[in-house]
Amino acid sequence: MTKKIVRVHFLGVGGGIPSLIRAPPSIAVSFHGRVLLFDCGEGTQLQLQRAGLSPQRIREIFISHLHGDHVLGLPGLISTMIMLNRTKSLTIYGPPGTKEFTEITLESTHAHLDFPLEIIDVMKGEISHQELYAVNCLPALHGVPAISYVLKMADIPGKFDTDKAEQLGVPSGPLRKRLYKGLQIETPEGRIVKPLDVLGPPRIGIRIAFSGDTAPNQDLVKAAKKASLLVHDATFTMAHLENATKYQHSTAAQAAEIAKLAQVSHLALVHISPRYASTQEHQQEAQAVFPHCSAPEDLECIELNFSE
Amino acid sequence: MTKKIVRVHFLGVGGGIPSLIRAPPSIAVSFHGRVLLFDCGEGTQLQLQRAGLSPQRIREIFISHLHGDHVLGLPGLISTMIMLNRTKSLTIYGPPGTKEFTEITLESTHAHLDFPLEIIDVMKGEISHQELYAVNCLPALHGVPAISYVLKMADIPGKFDTDKAEQLGVPSGPLRKRLYKGLQIETPEGRIVKPLDVLGPPRIGIRIAFSGDTAPNQDLVKAAKKASLLVHDATFTMAHLENATKYQHSTAAQAAEIAKLAQVSHLALVHISPRYASTQEHQQEAQAVFPHCSAPEDLECIELNFSE
Repeated sequence: MTKKIVRVHFLGVGGGIPSLIRAPPSIAVSFHGRVLLFDCGEGTQLQLQRAGLSPQRIREIFISHLHGDHVLGLPGLISTMIMLNRTKSLTIYGPPGTKEFTEITLESTHAHLDFPLEIIDVMKGEISHQELYAVNCLPALHGVPAISYVLKMADIPGKFDTDKAEQLGVPSGPLRKRLYKGLQIETPEGRIVKPLDVLGPPRIGIRIAFSGDTAPNQDLVKAAKKASLLVHDATFTMAHLENATKYQHSTAAQAAEIAKLAQVSHLALVHISPRYASTQEHQQEAQAVFPHCSAPEDLECIELNFSE
Repeated sequence: MTKKIVRVHFLGVGGGIPSLIRAPPSIAVSFHGRVLLFDCGEGTQLQLQRAGLSPQRIREIFISHLHGDHVLGLPGLISTMIMLNRTKSLTIYGPPGTKEFTEITLESTHAHLDFPLEIIDVMKGEISHQELYAVNCLPALHGVPAISYVLKMADIPGKFDTDKAEQLGVPSGPLRKRLYKGLQIETPEGRIVKPLDVLGPPRIGIRIAFSGDTAPNQDLVKAAKKASLLVHDATFTMAHLENATKYQHSTAAQAAEIAKLAQVSHLALVHISPRYASTQEHQQEAQAVFPHCSAPEDLECIELNFSE
């Protein structure tokens, strides 16, 4: 069932100065035809085009903090939504200042909104609760108001045991669908069958944690516990630990330490400084601590499936 | 003498929604190791990288108007200048609102200026007068405060007549250089030689006019008179004249009409709407009116030399 697949598109994995090999931060998560965007650096709208993702599919945008590389693509993206005659609503979340920045840039550039845009300044707690997912956030450690986000997809029903259904006389079709949806049914022979008779234990929804820019943060360990994927700041390697400490970023090894403590399934290293031509050292030092990790390149996509 | 060459780098020739074939508006003019930038759409800093032009060489930036596609690359470009430890001053000109937009976006994104940045809101007149060039501006016709710019390079001395100098007994070297600079000299034989004795008539400096976004404007015809190059709005072809009129842009044919009336040497058609995959029709309809024209692609460069 493809609709259970969640795709994480790494639109930009660079940090600081945009370069021709790494775009500024932006990650799109797509599922069920919709897209959630985490950060929106300059040029994100072109990266969306390259990834084949229409801006009109974006429902919510989550900004980690207001350093330019994370947010300067926002006014242009919204302007493009306007020019494409968007009517669907859009909600943007970010630390205090996000609402003012967005509104003033749109006003200065004569952009006239034709669709409902809500901008909500946040710092912690559950900020979005939808039928299919919820998003929580917590403060990151970065010197300016900054946020880590955790996206939690809704749990889905357990595996359907077709042999058992056969045994109990539940024919294929609508009756099985009702059971899958959690409803009790009566078979053609008059037997009452409950969902738990044919379904395995509920499958826990995919969880993805985004550190944003941050020094290593124990609160994130708790929030990202057993997540399917942790996308973590790995601006520097340990060779530049001093810079990481000074500018409140993380090294690849520190990111791996957080992933290990949080027992996540996979770690993706992002926000690579333009000083590094390759991420080989990032990957080596992280893998020494936490083997299930990678450093995606721009436009790489990680697919996540619900576990059995 | 290569230092007399002026290069016009078409960093982005698109208009409206940025696309993978045409970047938003930005044109860099380079000469004598320095760069002047006209408009700065989202992603201009990457286009500068692609063109091999360092942001640190930019002395002045001229914004035609505050529609997002012309200005949203400015905050990121300035942030990058800061991260590259710029110390040289920078001046930005644009219509009223430019100063506020730039200052507020830098403040919102925690950008701390370490170099002198002056931002000047203008609408008409001579706005920059340097040793090597001057820039004038005049209002464009675009529904919001918008400007056309004319860059005028300083006139340079006439052609040096070496035969005449030989005849008059002026030896090669410093004495000839002084004459070329406009200074009177005395030859080793005691003869007084004046610059006009050996120099042809002064050569008029290269002039480049940038329409910005505009409906056809008779004032621009006057301001761009006999310019070496006119870079003109050609958002639409005549097939979409109605749109051009409605949104106060020009068609390629209208741009050519302005070029013809202004008797410029060459016309470059820019700000092409993303609806056109090719600019073939733009070029055809413009050339029917004014043959000396082209529609440069992103990153194309036109070289201008001082005429003899």
